[in-house]
Amino acid sequence: MEIGLIRVRTLEDMKAGDKHGSLIEKAFPGLQIKCYAIEDQPYGIHDEESEEIARPKVIKLAKELEGVEAVIISCAADPGVAELREELRIPVIGAGESLAYISRTLGNHVGAITIRDNVPDLVRRELGKHFLAWEKVEGVKTGLDLELEASYENTLNAARDLVRRGSNVIALACTGFSTIGIAPEIGKKLGLPVVDPILAAGSMAYNLMLNREGWNAVED
Amino acid sequence: MEIGLIRVRTLEDMKAGDKHGSLIEKAFPGLQIKCYAIEDQPYGIHDEESEEIARPKVIKLAKELEGVEAVIISCAADPGVAELREELRIPVIGAGESLAYISRTLGNHVGAITIRDNVPDLVRRELGKHFLAWEKVEGVKTGLDLELEASYENTLNAARDLVRRGSNVIALACTGFSTIGIAPEIGKKLGLPVVDPILAAGSMAYNLMLNREGWNAVED
Repeated sequence: MEIGLIRVRTLEDMKAGDKHGSLIEKAFPGLQIKCYAIEDQPYGIHDEESEEIARPKVIKLAKELEGVEAVIISCAADPGVAELREELRIPVIGAGESLAYISRTLGNHVGAITIRDNVPDLVRRELGKHFLAWEKVEGVKTGLDLELEASYENTLNAARDLVRRGSNVIALACTGFSTIGIAPEIGKKLGLPVVDPILAAGSMAYNLMLNREGWNAVED
Repeated sequence: MEIGLIRVRTLEDMKAGDKHGSLIEKAFPGLQIKCYAIEDQPYGIHDEESEEIARPKVIKLAKELEGVEAVIISCAADPGVAELREELRIPVIGAGESLAYISRTLGNHVGAITIRDNVPDLVRRELGKHFLAWEKVEGVKTGLDLELEASYENTLNAARDLVRRGSNVIALACTGFSTIGIAPEIGKKLGLPVVDPILAAGSMAYNLMLNREGWNAVED
């Protein structure tokens, strides 16, 4: 089953493959991800202004997609997801909503880690009463900064703070955390469930496949 | 990763394997399901009275589990899930919540099919504004009746009604639908996303594994 995935950060070389797509393909046998990226936003979405600038680009790009059976918007702020659901005939899967739903199922005191000065509104809203607290990663201004060496330890520290404050699950509220693949590292070190937004979105798309092609499809 | 799964219907022969467990194991490589069933309820949960009788049994059984890293309560009414989350240190995954969250992500007009004279409260609540309508399968009093020959066509008819009323995703709000494996049949015939409650719950548990052991784990 072919699924479109829209990156909200401009990528110079799409041909080299896309990390988010390959994460999903590896975890969910049978899904094939076609990646696209919006233009002129090399630093992605990292505050309200960049989110507003990206939203119409995401909507335009998603409407142009052909030959895919669902589309994943690869940003925890879910830019354009609500608008696109009203317009497209295929499922529109937001990484932010997916993250919130899976996190609240795995624990009732969710701690969210962000790169922004807030938790994306929809993540907080959809976590509902399961939302406990959030922390920003120190020294990070955009998702790209997560690739700095210091960000690894700073992200772990944010998770440790959230655990101290009573979190029993960690929600990674930026898809930049997926790019650096830090979820299992946090899980192993701190011994609690961690939810990755891209794998959360992939889970939703996987249900689409399993329930259409039959559960034997994964063996093909 | 070993996950416990509690059936709310008494099974005569657990050794012969359990359908719900094998559905999850087939769809989510790396998960191992250990099945348990409550006692003295051969007809499972099929109305409010049988739900109230089952709840304390589910809670007692879940508290006795050892050696599992999460527990799935295999009933769309999520009996005992809220209570167990306050008491257990491992994630408690309700099939009902999981169904609601995945359904609302895959469509904004969810039609639910039930075997009861209502939609389980928590499914309706967690679907929120994405809930559109529900239908009961004709001629069915308990989950076991879904195995009758006529129930196949009656379930398809319920789905057709929901599509006529504007549903763009079908939520199967009883785990008896998982037992008969009807989700892909509805999906193929009616051409829209269908969500199976057991695979929905399995998806949640799979995130637990992926994010702890690393996404390469599925290749082992």
